[in-house]
Amino acid sequence: MRRIVFALAVFLAATLFAQTPSEPSMLGFSPGNAAKERAIESQFDSSLKKDELRDWLKRLSARPHHLGSAYDKENAEFIASLFKSWGYDTNIEEFRVLFPTPKRRVVELIAPEKFTAKLVEPPVPGDATSGQQSEQLPTYNAYSIDGDVTGDLVYANYGIPADYEVLARNGVDVKGKIVITRYGGSWRGIKPKVAAEHGAIGCIIYSDPKDDGYGQGDVYPKGAYRNENGAQRGSVMDMPVHPGDPLTPGIGATVDAKRIDRKDADVITKIPVLPISYGDALPLLRALAGPVAPPEWRGALPITYHLGPGPSRVHLALEFNWNMVPAYDVIARMAGSQYPDEWVMRGNHHDAWVNGANDPLSGLVAELEEAKAIAELAKSGWRPKRTIQFAAWDGEEEGLIGSTEWAETHADELRAKGVVYINSDTNSRGFLDAGGSHTLEKLVTQVARDIPDPERNVSVLARMRAREATLAKNAEERKEAREHELIRLDALGSGSDYTPFLQHTGIAAMNIGYGGEGGGGSYHSVYDSFDHYTRFGDPNFDYGIAQAKTTGRLVLRLANADVLPFELTTFADTVGRYMDELTKLADNERRDIEDRNRLVRDRAYEIAADPTRTFISPIAEEAVPYLNFAPLQNAVAHLKRSAREFDRAAASAPADRQPAFDRALMRIEQSLLLPNGLPRRPWFRHQIYAPGFYTGYGVKTIPGVREAIEQKQWTDANAQIESVARVIDAYAAEVERAAK
Amino acid sequence: MRRIVFALAVFLAATLFAQTPSEPSMLGFSPGNAAKERAIESQFDSSLKKDELRDWLKRLSARPHHLGSAYDKENAEFIASLFKSWGYDTNIEEFRVLFPTPKRRVVELIAPEKFTAKLVEPPVPGDATSGQQSEQLPTYNAYSIDGDVTGDLVYANYGIPADYEVLARNGVDVKGKIVITRYGGSWRGIKPKVAAEHGAIGCIIYSDPKDDGYGQGDVYPKGAYRNENGAQRGSVMDMPVHPGDPLTPGIGATVDAKRIDRKDADVITKIPVLPISYGDALPLLRALAGPVAPPEWRGALPITYHLGPGPSRVHLALEFNWNMVPAYDVIARMAGSQYPDEWVMRGNHHDAWVNGANDPLSGLVAELEEAKAIAELAKSGWRPKRTIQFAAWDGEEEGLIGSTEWAETHADELRAKGVVYINSDTNSRGFLDAGGSHTLEKLVTQVARDIPDPERNVSVLARMRAREATLAKNAEERKEAREHELIRLDALGSGSDYTPFLQHTGIAAMNIGYGGEGGGGSYHSVYDSFDHYTRFGDPNFDYGIAQAKTTGRLVLRLANADVLPFELTTFADTVGRYMDELTKLADNERRDIEDRNRLVRDRAYEIAADPTRTFISPIAEEAVPYLNFAPLQNAVAHLKRSAREFDRAAASAPADRQPAFDRALMRIEQSLLLPNGLPRRPWFRHQIYAPGFYTGYGVKTIPGVREAIEQKQWTDANAQIESVARVIDAYAAEVERAAK
Repeated sequence: MRRIVFALAVFLAATLFAQTPSEPSMLGFSPGNAAKERAIESQFDSSLKKDELRDWLKRLSARPHHLGSAYDKENAEFIASLFKSWGYDTNIEEFRVLFPTPKRRVVELIAPEKFTAKLVEPPVPGDATSGQQSEQLPTYNAYSIDGDVTGDLVYANYGIPADYEVLARNGVDVKGKIVITRYGGSWRGIKPKVAAEHGAIGCIIYSDPKDDGYGQGDVYPKGAYRNENGAQRGSVMDMPVHPGDPLTPGIGATVDAKRIDRKDADVITKIPVLPISYGDALPLLRALAGPVAPPEWRGALPITYHLGPGPSRVHLALEFNWNMVPAYDVIARMAGSQYPDEWVMRGNHHDAWVNGANDPLSGLVAELEEAKAIAELAKSGWRPKRTIQFAAWDGEEEGLIGSTEWAETHADELRAKGVVYINSDTNSRGFLDAGGSHTLEKLVTQVARDIPDPERNVSVLARMRAREATLAKNAEERKEAREHELIRLDALGSGSDYTPFLQHTGIAAMNIGYGGEGGGGSYHSVYDSFDHYTRFGDPNFDYGIAQAKTTGRLVLRLANADVLPFELTTFADTVGRYMDELTKLADNERRDIEDRNRLVRDRAYEIAADPTRTFISPIAEEAVPYLNFAPLQNAVAHLKRSAREFDRAAASAPADRQPAFDRALMRIEQSLLLPNGLPRRPWFRHQIYAPGFYTGYGVKTIPGVREAIEQKQWTDANAQIESVARVIDAYAAEVERAAK
Repeated sequence: MRRIVFALAVFLAATLFAQTPSEPSMLGFSPGNAAKERAIESQFDSSLKKDELRDWLKRLSARPHHLGSAYDKENAEFIASLFKSWGYDTNIEEFRVLFPTPKRRVVELIAPEKFTAKLVEPPVPGDATSGQQSEQLPTYNAYSIDGDVTGDLVYANYGIPADYEVLARNGVDVKGKIVITRYGGSWRGIKPKVAAEHGAIGCIIYSDPKDDGYGQGDVYPKGAYRNENGAQRGSVMDMPVHPGDPLTPGIGATVDAKRIDRKDADVITKIPVLPISYGDALPLLRALAGPVAPPEWRGALPITYHLGPGPSRVHLALEFNWNMVPAYDVIARMAGSQYPDEWVMRGNHHDAWVNGANDPLSGLVAELEEAKAIAELAKSGWRPKRTIQFAAWDGEEEGLIGSTEWAETHADELRAKGVVYINSDTNSRGFLDAGGSHTLEKLVTQVARDIPDPERNVSVLARMRAREATLAKNAEERKEAREHELIRLDALGSGSDYTPFLQHTGIAAMNIGYGGEGGGGSYHSVYDSFDHYTRFGDPNFDYGIAQAKTTGRLVLRLANADVLPFELTTFADTVGRYMDELTKLADNERRDIEDRNRLVRDRAYEIAADPTRTFISPIAEEAVPYLNFAPLQNAVAHLKRSAREFDRAAASAPADRQPAFDRALMRIEQSLLLPNGLPRRPWFRHQIYAPGFYTGYGVKTIPGVREAIEQKQWTDANAQIESVARVIDAYAAEVERAAK
């Protein structure tokens, strides 16, 4: 008996991470329509073919295809020809945008010894495209200003604001110096921005082997990680201010658009900046003296990391061709049968820094396969209720240029017709990684439940949850992994093409991909190649197929649902959690400053410091006032009530009332925007999600309030609480009206 | 007005870390006697001379002086001559002990390429003694067994039990392999012990540059840290079983002592083990393949750390001269005027691995200076009430041999007369670092309050507390640093000569030293020299003087007090804290195992694992039963009541009752021992403090219970709770009787 009970317990427990029983409910569908939808999805799955992914990936990555290159245009045309061949209403939309490429790049150590950085990623054996040097963009950071500077070097770790605090405590000032930072800790564009704010005259960013080189695994071509010559290209345009073409902020960069002067563009860096390899960084860092860097600042180079300044003295000279180049967005449309003016949008960029097999082609080929399979459904007589629109964006790498210019050009239509934007980018072996509007958590969870993981005999949902549970750091996290049924979508910051849709236009958005087992350090280097990807990324394209199934289902359910499959309750609860985070943030900051000020007054920092080393004690800071969170608390309570009411009403809406719910959902999402945007950056209008002003890609939720608290602007914080509270209150009122 | 209030607030706050007002109370002294004691201490201070410390350090470190060497004997005689010259009743007590030295040391990489480890620390410029190669002990681990083994290499991180769990998860078995571990994470002797328990045939221990090489700071001779040739000598005798001569466990190793056979000695390693430098380790580690080591396992060598096994194949051959050598303890005594049969003992070892300027001479010269100054007090007519006894131990490095053999030889007298043992060892610039019996917290705090810090214009107590407050990691720790008035003495594990006194004999003990600003990686290498110490350790001997003042005051107050300055309340409260830790430990372990078992049953580990890598899922473990802590809880409650009663009574005891309190304090401390000792190691008798069986130096408080829980021996845990409860109960009853 005992044995049987035990076996039963095992069975019950095992189902937790296994497939749930057949025919569970499907958000937005009646049971009958859900069954039809399932049949369509099976048919969809059956036409997905791995070999096509491989062939397309090989073809698209065969030559470097950055913005403005010949092969970039060829790829756009090839992609358009595919869409056309499948019957989509396809066009290539062209913009003209500012895109600097290097004319001169010099990094020299001129003291205490001489060294000239190579700044070259050489071909490696077994990588067929790494030798295409005549077409490769050299290693550089796009939208660095021109400059020729010489100065003592300071090592500033990741180069984020907190790192300058540490430098100050050590008596190191970067004014008039060249700063060397390492990749990581923030988006790269933050590094030259913060360095310039502190008076540095130049900035170098290197890839420390600890972060994506031999400190993580064997280096390419032996293993997947960055070798001593690998460097990370990338844009340093000040995207947290606005993405897109620097000369046409807020408007489409059409050929005849009114452009501002380059000198007035506020997203070009203030100081010259260049990325280098760790091979090139080693002589510079090894020669530094001054205080020893704190333990967390030390990388994996075989040296003692010092802060400087000097005696390493560096000459950094950069000059760019400030060209205007064409950007080619491919747009393919399949009109909806019932709601042609409701657009379900799907996109992935096609441009790369070099060959870009992983970034972005791994995601793009899955999108193409998905589009092909949907076209085949259409050939068999099926039509989506809502319009489906696929995009392959250009110029993402430079600053989300293709998507931003398109969204700005079509802003009015987009606001009127946009339902959702589903983005993808890189994709590789591993786990479902999903971010997006919290209204979509139930939809994503139900889809993830229905996709089998290619490596394990469970759903991708079960696998994702097993991972969370096994990685949980404490009992609380394990409980959450066990008991919280929905996927918690990561709030979206920036870093890919969803930004203009979500944060500028107010279209609900998602970012979907697989990853976590691919590993590697080929990001934005010449080694992001077909050979690298098919050795380390997703050798059998199993996760390409999983990705096509996932985003395909999302598109199909959004296009076919009786009522748009959004759930407002999840959103309301999540906003409640963000609010709680904010109150805690303020309370912790208050307590920390109180404690620190007490230590400052007691001279504890001076007393504890080693007199043989420079140590500058912090100074007392203004006490943190108590903030009036009441307006926000009331608004969130209102939101929670109305969201529940709405979800109940939408779920039981009779057919004739369903269109009204669709229209309401499209409208209310946009009520989370404010026309004047966030403080200091009007382009970013969404009041719940934004990339951090000092993190770049990293999200800040309820950003107006959160950043005011983080930056200790207490008057602003109170004003922002009121402002966001009004937005949420209006949203809740709108939801309430719609529910009735 | 406002301004004045603010200034006052600053003044009040500043006093927190500054000197407290004059003439505070002095534990164990009447106000009148406290004033006299203060005068004596001032006179004591005035005869301390830095130049003597420097001269003695130079003289004692002039040549290598390990156990059994010619200069070791010369040093003992020199030390004895000093004590004699100051008027102490001095003798050198000689023991004969087993001490292996290397005859053959070979570490070779034989595949996939050839490399022979140099195993040499060469002379360096600017270090006058580093070239004395004919007298230096080579780099080796004493009490490694002889052996000649060849096998594939496995990297096992620190080589502690948890590391073998990680290896098992990665499918790596060390059976029949040679294990390479890095220094750190535990005492070194744990590494070969645990490796042998898992079936390894040999063990190599290297110093990773992350831990005390260039990862910490510039290397010697440019900076203080371990260079690529530096290796850490050290004993691997299984000291958590028992320290001292391996052939005379539990008895003094006098010339005619009855010895066991070497093959029966249970503290010699089961497999051969040798320490190497990172220069020698690099080729071995670089050639490893197999899984990539987890992030926390990676050191600062410029390689990807792999686990193996192989293809690195290593030949390790070791042969030793198993010599019997003399050990010379110097003992110097000044008889007490009132309580000659109450001994206040003070000790520091004099032997070193090589020249040993820091370890142990920096502590020894401060002890000598202290003895000299006390002798000068005596010349002026003062006599201590209690007997003061100074010791300079031999053979500490090999396994606390000199102190252990002395304590075992004099066990009966020691139990009858020992009041306290105050140990010191290394000493350098920085902060007071104090460990010891919790009955002594008030005494140590009062002394620390009275010593000016040499670098900052505050007491060493204030400086220590400023450091704790500024390093506090969270609000709780900051509050503790602010509000807890007593120094929390670290509970003593092992690693220096207090062990035979405290844990074998039941004498209250302390370990006192300064450090934290010296830094460096000269530990147990030829570079622990006069030149190194006077550049990096304590260049002006200011902290040598601070140390002499501190331990001198401790000795003087203990020797002169009306009643022994012990406080039982602190001890009782601390035991209560340890008990709370144990209940939490069991609860956390229960919850963690429950959660983990659930994940095992759900197959979550398998589901989450990357199928392209070997991953062995853990198996379900026995559930943790609820333990019966009630006996311990009742005993601790009893202890707290009786301790408060005793302290009250002792503080107000009339002169004629004071001797009785002294005798009671000496007796009750010993009632914390059990004659049969701890499970698996009868030599360790103390039921509150022991070095961990699997940590070596690191302390385990209430060790019987704690280790049973940690090792998941639940029946033992319940039995040990009862056993310790009886000990504490008996102690409390004894205290209660004494208070009446």
